[in-house]
Amino acid sequence: MDLRLDHLRRERTGLAEAVYAPGKTPAQCVEAVSGLLAGPGTGPVLLTRANDAQAAAVVAGCPGAVSADAGADDSGVPLRTLTWGALPPTGHTALVLTAGTSDLPVAREAAAVLAAYGHGADVVADVGVAGVHRVLEQEERIAGADVVLVVAGMEGALASVVTGLTSAPVIAVPTSTGYGSGFAGVTALLGMMASCSPGVTVVGIDNGFGAACAAVRILAARG
Amino acid sequence: MDLRLDHLRRERTGLAEAVYAPGKTPAQCVEAVSGLLAGPGTGPVLLTRANDAQAAAVVAGCPGAVSADAGADDSGVPLRTLTWGALPPTGHTALVLTAGTSDLPVAREAAAVLAAYGHGADVVADVGVAGVHRVLEQEERIAGADVVLVVAGMEGALASVVTGLTSAPVIAVPTSTGYGSGFAGVTALLGMMASCSPGVTVVGIDNGFGAACAAVRILAARG
Amino acid sequence: MDLRLDHLRRERTGLAEAVYAPGKTPAQCVEAVSGLLAGPGTGPVLLTRANDAQAAAVVAGCPGAVSADAGADDSGVPLRTLTWGALPPTGHTALVLTAGTSDLPVAREAAAVLAAYGHGADVVADVGVAGVHRVLEQEERIAGADVVLVVAGMEGALASVVTGLTSAPVIAVPTSTGYGSGFAGVTALLGMMASCSPGVTVVGIDNGFGAACAAVRILAARG
Amino acid sequence: MDLRLDHLRRERTGLAEAVYAPGKTPAQCVEAVSGLLAGPGTGPVLLTRANDAQAAAVVAGCPGAVSADAGADDSGVPLRTLTWGALPPTGHTALVLTAGTSDLPVAREAAAVLAAYGHGADVVADVGVAGVHRVLEQEERIAGADVVLVVAGMEGALASVVTGLTSAPVIAVPTSTGYGSGFAGVTALLGMMASCSPGVTVVGIDNGFGAACAAVRILAARG
Amino acid sequence: MDLRLDHLRRERTGLAEAVYAPGKTPAQCVEAVSGLLAGPGTGPVLLTRANDAQAAAVVAGCPGAVSADAGADDSGVPLRTLTWGALPPTGHTALVLTAGTSDLPVAREAAAVLAAYGHGADVVADVGVAGVHRVLEQEERIAGADVVLVVAGMEGALASVVTGLTSAPVIAVPTSTGYGSGFAGVTALLGMMASCSPGVTVVGIDNGFGAACAAVRILAARG
Amino acid sequence: MDLRLDHLRRERTGLAEAVYAPGKTPAQCVEAVSGLLAGPGTGPVLLTRANDAQAAAVVAGCPGAVSADAGADDSGVPLRTLTWGALPPTGHTALVLTAGTSDLPVAREAAAVLAAYGHGADVVADVGVAGVHRVLEQEERIAGADVVLVVAGMEGALASVVTGLTSAPVIAVPTSTGYGSGFAGVTALLGMMASCSPGVTVVGIDNGFGAACAAVRILAARG
Amino acid sequence: MDLRLDHLRRERTGLAEAVYAPGKTPAQCVEAVSGLLAGPGTGPVLLTRANDAQAAAVVAGCPGAVSADAGADDSGVPLRTLTWGALPPTGHTALVLTAGTSDLPVAREAAAVLAAYGHGADVVADVGVAGVHRVLEQEERIAGADVVLVVAGMEGALASVVTGLTSAPVIAVPTSTGYGSGFAGVTALLGMMASCSPGVTVVGIDNGFGAACAAVRILAARG
Amino acid sequence: MDLRLDHLRRERTGLAEAVYAPGKTPAQCVEAVSGLLAGPGTGPVLLTRANDAQAAAVVAGCPGAVSADAGADDSGVPLRTLTWGALPPTGHTALVLTAGTSDLPVAREAAAVLAAYGHGADVVADVGVAGVHRVLEQEERIAGADVVLVVAGMEGALASVVTGLTSAPVIAVPTSTGYGSGFAGVTALLGMMASCSPGVTVVGIDNGFGAACAAVRILAARG
Repeated sequence: MDLRLDHLRRERTGLAEAVYAPGKTPAQCVEAVSGLLAGPGTGPVLLTRANDAQAAAVVAGCPGAVSADAGADDSGVPLRTLTWGALPPTGHTALVLTAGTSDLPVAREAAAVLAAYGHGADVVADVGVAGVHRVLEQEERIAGADVVLVVAGMEGALASVVTGLTSAPVIAVPTSTGYGSGFAGVTALLGMMASCSPGVTVVGIDNGFGAACAAVRILAARG
Repeated sequence: MDLRLDHLRRERTGLAEAVYAPGKTPAQCVEAVSGLLAGPGTGPVLLTRANDAQAAAVVAGCPGAVSADAGADDSGVPLRTLTWGALPPTGHTALVLTAGTSDLPVAREAAAVLAAYGHGADVVADVGVAGVHRVLEQEERIAGADVVLVVAGMEGALASVVTGLTSAPVIAVPTSTGYGSGFAGVTALLGMMASCSPGVTVVGIDNGFGAACAAVRILAARG
Repeated sequence: MDLRLDHLRRERTGLAEAVYAPGKTPAQCVEAVSGLLAGPGTGPVLLTRANDAQAAAVVAGCPGAVSADAGADDSGVPLRTLTWGALPPTGHTALVLTAGTSDLPVAREAAAVLAAYGHGADVVADVGVAGVHRVLEQEERIAGADVVLVVAGMEGALASVVTGLTSAPVIAVPTSTGYGSGFAGVTALLGMMASCSPGVTVVGIDNGFGAACAAVRILAARG
Repeated sequence: MDLRLDHLRRERTGLAEAVYAPGKTPAQCVEAVSGLLAGPGTGPVLLTRANDAQAAAVVAGCPGAVSADAGADDSGVPLRTLTWGALPPTGHTALVLTAGTSDLPVAREAAAVLAAYGHGADVVADVGVAGVHRVLEQEERIAGADVVLVVAGMEGALASVVTGLTSAPVIAVPTSTGYGSGFAGVTALLGMMASCSPGVTVVGIDNGFGAACAAVRILAARG
Repeated sequence: MDLRLDHLRRERTGLAEAVYAPGKTPAQCVEAVSGLLAGPGTGPVLLTRANDAQAAAVVAGCPGAVSADAGADDSGVPLRTLTWGALPPTGHTALVLTAGTSDLPVAREAAAVLAAYGHGADVVADVGVAGVHRVLEQEERIAGADVVLVVAGMEGALASVVTGLTSAPVIAVPTSTGYGSGFAGVTALLGMMASCSPGVTVVGIDNGFGAACAAVRILAARG
Repeated sequence: MDLRLDHLRRERTGLAEAVYAPGKTPAQCVEAVSGLLAGPGTGPVLLTRANDAQAAAVVAGCPGAVSADAGADDSGVPLRTLTWGALPPTGHTALVLTAGTSDLPVAREAAAVLAAYGHGADVVADVGVAGVHRVLEQEERIAGADVVLVVAGMEGALASVVTGLTSAPVIAVPTSTGYGSGFAGVTALLGMMASCSPGVTVVGIDNGFGAACAAVRILAARG
Repeated sequence: MDLRLDHLRRERTGLAEAVYAPGKTPAQCVEAVSGLLAGPGTGPVLLTRANDAQAAAVVAGCPGAVSADAGADDSGVPLRTLTWGALPPTGHTALVLTAGTSDLPVAREAAAVLAAYGHGADVVADVGVAGVHRVLEQEERIAGADVVLVVAGMEGALASVVTGLTSAPVIAVPTSTGYGSGFAGVTALLGMMASCSPGVTVVGIDNGFGAACAAVRILAARG
Repeated sequence: MDLRLDHLRRERTGLAEAVYAPGKTPAQCVEAVSGLLAGPGTGPVLLTRANDAQAAAVVAGCPGAVSADAGADDSGVPLRTLTWGALPPTGHTALVLTAGTSDLPVAREAAAVLAAYGHGADVVADVGVAGVHRVLEQEERIAGADVVLVVAGMEGALASVVTGLTSAPVIAVPTSTGYGSGFAGVTALLGMMASCSPGVTVVGIDNGFGAACAAVRILAARG
């Protein structure tokens, strides 16, 4: 096939090439994962956003997978993150806050990717700013975190409030959840980009994978 | 000229017709204000967003104007709200919160319109959520307000936080201020529409006049 | 699980936390509703936009539900609003106008939420401005209302006409219905935000829940 | 120069080629108008949206111009429509309604183009739907018109109301006027396209010229 | 139910109220059509965009329907236009041009509505400007038409070319068909609004019904 | 300063690095042009979109410039393309068609860049499709061209018509000119991208420079 | 039926009319392909984006088809490109680069169209710029190509990098693939239009057909 | 006045409150800077985006300012970043890469903010991907950096290429520079959000201040 695997990506970037399942046949998923597992690369192998058929094929074809829930696609098909060869624990932990329970799948994708690189994820759900005291109950945890991921849909205001409570790096992930006028994550994305709190950084809509990668880059400096 | 004044609008809606200055010559402003003052209407007469030339003409031609700062147009030309025949004080007061100092002109336009209808405006500026404790310092005032106007640009998150702290009606006004990706108020508008706090209502960008009118409608019920 | 229920939200905001069903499993819906019913909160418990499976699970698991039609999701799956512990009647009534019959489900969601708080809803459908006399037939009712909800898709012009006929607060709800170029509610949303009638306020697209919450805030002042 | 005049356009389309002034030097305007006046074409010659310098040059260089106000460009520079060789009166008249006085320049551009083709224009300003009785005062005139132009900014709701009152063809012109969230005419454009009244047709933002051309096409059938 | 039928709409506007099927149950469709048939209105009764279940119900419940293909909804469900009580032939005919064969269903909806009002429709498909000679082969027919409907997706250029070949009124209908970057009709809509040919008017995306209504308004003047 | 000139770009891409004047001081323009003239690169040196001050500085500081009109910036400041060391004539010629006279400055920028690489430009203005016979008068020239640039604003329909008349490569340049709803070139850009004529390629809005570069790439193959 | 086949399109444009399957019934596909095969045209016949039912019908009804994978529609239905009467090999080859494996179906559609016109396609997948060395490994092939097609989703950056490495014409095809914020190809489309590399040209989203047509136009000059 | 200074922001977030000059009078700038200098806060005081009048006032009123170029506003007015009380050097350095020279002002704003917090900034301009070897010449520096800021307009592709060459955190800043279709930074913003390189994070358009604040958060962990 046409696979051109980037076995040395981890050496260059600290992050091994991951396989993005959507648009691939189950056989293509197996081929890509097998190729990475057999190659000279040293990092963990990840298959992201796999549906049931893709997951079944790789679990059968590539032993040793650890699986985590990663929400669903637009048609409601449940998706999973699969990991082979996770790195040993580093002792570092990212704080992952979500505004609502429907943001949890994106948070879990981020947690699975962090785990593949040996980092812990302290997921605290349901601290949306409609009840700002819920955020403030976490104030100490937020202030003391190494890095914070804020996962929120709707207007995404949680990122601004959290960033004002910590000196840690904050990575905001807009999600496509929400009633009314969230426009599939665009409102949250714009709100996070325009945040009044200095130093918020943003990744793409529902991109828990990218947010975790950014956190891995930040935590790498801690040794 | 072509003026078709709606003298009985206050009888129908509680709000007298106001004259919107942009796009009118100073002479047209004078004619419209004079016509309303001379007509059968019983409410206050307002000229909104008047520039220097328009303001000078109506101050000269229509004695008795009270003037208030209302920011500037896109080219930085300072604008004013002018009022004739304000109603006597009602004893009611709206709480007007702004996220930053650059949101103040919109807040002041709202305050001027509220004053024309006899209502007070308690303007508290600079309570943006980047320092959420600043909002919480106002918690008692917010909880006890009759109606709250939240004036904010950038991501507009203040509306969500404030609405979670009060049972009063909340009217959010997106403003066109802000660094980076506010897109002239669109980001704040979308964020306020998609707010995770139940019961936020929204008016147009920089529309301090409209927000005050909505507050007048709400306060009218209090007698 | 990760639920972080906000039992005291009604004390702070007059509105108890509601459970938004989309994206939750039936079991998560039951857990959330049960938790709120068992908690120290004093308000009604609402489950909004529940599909058949979610509704069946909570009806079985949480006795006492009152159910109301709330339209359908994008795939046409019928949705419902479920209520436990509605407050006793207050004697207040909101006037809910819709432009067409296809706006009725959003109006009914609003009515169900109003009912949960003890308020009546006087729903008048099909008064779109294409036959403006239909609006004018309601002129007296509109003029005398305590608060008016205008539910309209397409160009949303009904909000402007109605607001010009009353001194009551008006809450406009853009809907995603309509032929041609409504762009799933965006056209109505923009039109309502830009209304030429002073004092219109707007909530998110199809957000009957939010509109009712805003009305509850306004009616609360009437005691 | 590079002018490629379309002298026979009136023979093909009933409408002679018009010269659009923006982006042309005064000399280019004179050359284009002179060329059309000297050519074999039989229709009126129009120069649209000319600023002072352009207008002065053609008035000097091409005797016989009739001038009409056509608003201003984005920087506030006043613009004019100039006509040479208007056709004799046809006895037909278009009804031109505007929502506000700031829509008048667009209405006047349309009236000037209609006049060039011998048609009258009955301009009625300031009948916006915020006071719907103002529209209804014109009900008879609207019902009896040959063709109606509706010129409106903000939410453009006037088009829907008027179209519901007449069997005549209705041409809606969105304008870029308005407070708040009109987005320079886009809101009105979308609203008119999505109108709930059957048979509204729409032209581009501020395009009084195009609306008049459409009316000329419709009135031509009346002989 | 909540139906508020506008029986006298034809008397006011020349066009009877039509029933828009999407979002209605089959029973609601029957009720609406029956109500209009039984009412004092004199015009034809139309049910537009009915799916199989809706069509079957009204055909059974309301005898005398004439059915015409009207394309499909977003999920590919075939839709139909149903007519009761078409008016007698007027002798007038509209020319309906489509750029491609996939624009035909919208053209046929327009033709069905024209037929209900007694007008003929001369549908000429597949004259897109990629082969401009195909348009020119129709030049005589275009030049001699009473009114022209141009139905086109993609870039919608056909409207500009056709309008330059006739003095008749032209109504352009953007459609949601097309490869690549048509953005579900938005590109065609914008292109038609910005047409370089003077006098093009535009209706909403895929709105064959609205285009036909506009044509009925224009043809009415011919007696 | 911080200049990092790419002297060998012509060796890699056939096109030498060009200096884009906007945002540079006159001194920075001189430094960049001087650096390229003094470097090892073999191609022509181009300064694009220079205003009067920038042009005066480089003409004084870098002898031998050839200057060509390139329209104006958003504030109407006239701009120029300056060339040093044009290549000798190749004998190849690009056909450059514009829809209107206001598209000419973009066409001239393209012509200046083509000239710098030794290619001729046969500019034919004012062949917009509102009078499609004007395009057809050029049919032979279009059919026989080596490469065609189509420069058009408004709806950009010219690209579709021209591409249907030739087997040559066609490069479409959307321009920001036009009445009404061109949205500063976005309408033309979208229309050209969605063209129904197979094989149209598109460059950015007003990007005469880029279109010429694409033509240079195509003509290079002819030797 | 209403087919108006353009048999002489290849004579005019070098490219025979192709049949675009979406929106056509299987029978309409057969009729169109049969008509083209039976007509006076000399070029290959192509049916693009055919689903299983359409493909089965034409394979049965029109012998001699060569079939190639062309991805899937929005619902995941696999699509195919079918060709009849491919031209003999020309000896020319286009280099087709894709950023990822999910861009391959669009690349294959382009390859099938190139093959129909006798041109080869050298498809190199998976050279995205996240590992820029993968692009540089192809540097010689890129520098020596006759024409390059760059097929990329997400941010589309591959087009800029590749164009900086070759003097050949580059045709960029934005694709709708990608995680996060690709907005179904709009991000790639905009990025390619705004490329910092001079001479990139762009076709519509996922439009492998159009890109191949543009390449055929360019390669035609080579004889 | 209404200033509500957040003196303890540095204690909470590591970043002292900064004063954003646009929309403030020179006197308001002096008052805000003086207030922060006199308060209990321990961090540096920054005034960002000050024009000449604002800068002159604070330089006169608040001794000790260090000034740095920060580009210009939309009207071309030059802006500056002013700093009081910069922290002592930390020994850490951020690598700041720009795609072109016109991105330098944003890079300099970032460098000034980094300097205020004691960090160095290694600014390398003009490494755009149109000549990708220019990026690769910096490969070692990129691979060894503590944190990288990528400042780029147009299509913003530099962020993807750089992120593929380093394991350091990367903060991308879209800028509003560029020819053609950059849409004032939106294209770069979207491209960076959708980057194919894992771990890119993004801040708002032209927001050098925010990018530097994010870098300060990351570098703080290094002690």
